[in-house]
Amino acid sequence: MKLVRFLHRDIPRFGRLANDQIEMISGDPFNSIEPGAVSMNLDKVQLLAPVAPSKIVAVGLNYRDHAKELGMELPEEPIIFLKPPSSVIGSSEPVVYPPESKHVEYEAELAIVIGKTASHITVDAAQKHILGYTCANDITARDLQKRDGQWARAKGFDTFCPLGPHIETDFDPLDVEITLKKNGIVQQKSPTANMVYNVFELVCFISGVMTLFPGDVVLTGTPPGVGSVKIGDLVEVSIDGIGSLTNKII
Amino acid sequence: MKLVRFLHRDIPRFGRLANDQIEMISGDPFNSIEPGAVSMNLDKVQLLAPVAPSKIVAVGLNYRDHAKELGMELPEEPIIFLKPPSSVIGSSEPVVYPPESKHVEYEAELAIVIGKTASHITVDAAQKHILGYTCANDITARDLQKRDGQWARAKGFDTFCPLGPHIETDFDPLDVEITLKKNGIVQQKSPTANMVYNVFELVCFISGVMTLFPGDVVLTGTPPGVGSVKIGDLVEVSIDGIGSLTNKII
Repeated sequence: MKLVRFLHRDIPRFGRLANDQIEMISGDPFNSIEPGAVSMNLDKVQLLAPVAPSKIVAVGLNYRDHAKELGMELPEEPIIFLKPPSSVIGSSEPVVYPPESKHVEYEAELAIVIGKTASHITVDAAQKHILGYTCANDITARDLQKRDGQWARAKGFDTFCPLGPHIETDFDPLDVEITLKKNGIVQQKSPTANMVYNVFELVCFISGVMTLFPGDVVLTGTPPGVGSVKIGDLVEVSIDGIGSLTNKII
Repeated sequence: MKLVRFLHRDIPRFGRLANDQIEMISGDPFNSIEPGAVSMNLDKVQLLAPVAPSKIVAVGLNYRDHAKELGMELPEEPIIFLKPPSSVIGSSEPVVYPPESKHVEYEAELAIVIGKTASHITVDAAQKHILGYTCANDITARDLQKRDGQWARAKGFDTFCPLGPHIETDFDPLDVEITLKKNGIVQQKSPTANMVYNVFELVCFISGVMTLFPGDVVLTGTPPGVGSVKIGDLVEVSIDGIGSLTNKII
């Protein structure tokens, strides 16, 4: 099932997408999904980011081939960091290049959307705490990341966390291809099987530190091929079985 | 004015505290403060953390005497990091010592509570975007902080962000004394005048990176004298003109 979020009479609503038709859900998809009476054409609504997380937990250096490319050791445990909820935008919304940076990069990532509150759960239990998956772009001001040491500023600017276009609930996250195109040319392409810690191991690990709530998002790391963007570029993150997240740099 | 947050019939509510009486506010204090008809004794309610932030932005190494103590250069710009909203607890709630760490420390801090949405504001405009101030304890697993490099895990465990006991709106943040006692003995004691970047400079800087929303919290760094805690310790952060935030380590 594909879940979208959109504005209906100025109020954010969830909907179920099928054949370019959106059936509005009464309430939210974290409890029970009961489509309401309202239905509309996809091209008649402005899609929002598919979720409004209370937190976004991201993971550094989580692809074997990326670690190899950089000549770095694989981490003994996942290295986690946070992006602020204020950085979230949806597909088709612009990423704003901040004047403080001279080197902004894209990072295509698979995003996990939490479905049920998760605290100290096992790897085996992780799957039933996940609602679904979407595409993410962990936009990073590489120069500020190096200068600060801490990554919160470099990865925390407004518009630096594109998510979307929708949440796919029927999805096998363990071996799909993730691709990033800049202006139509492939820059990153990797199977998620190359992750050091898979999605279930990550949710287990993070839930042992901080309680994950419905709607929270976990970014699972980026494969090799990261590179810079400039104003006017169009970046597109595509994941097999989900779809494409497209954002212009302005 | 002292603002508190508490459970009333299982719903979090804001109230105005005067002479141990709480006048419940209809709505929230970020719009207009209009006390409702309901009033109750302070000792009849369970206070919550005085705010539920959408994000907590914290600042590293922001006291001159602490930098001097460590023999470190003052940073050229504030170094910011994030704590997750899931780490927030109120006064009298326990801090849970995580088994992953063997070295947990307290860090007494002055916390700013944002009152109005702030994006790219000037230093001069900062004050009118601030609702008030409260006490914070930026609990940190020092061993994990060093091991990870990124501070999100070490500072992000559930219960690692005590805030409270209330928000003081009539307060001069530029020269008050901040004190931390462990089991009744003073460990940290410093005037906020020793901050490298004052509260208005911090809100200005952070608002240039990420939009701050009403209820968001900015932690302003800790003075010298940080040290470890063990299970059973009682830690108390006191700020002149605000009050005391007390938490037991369990």
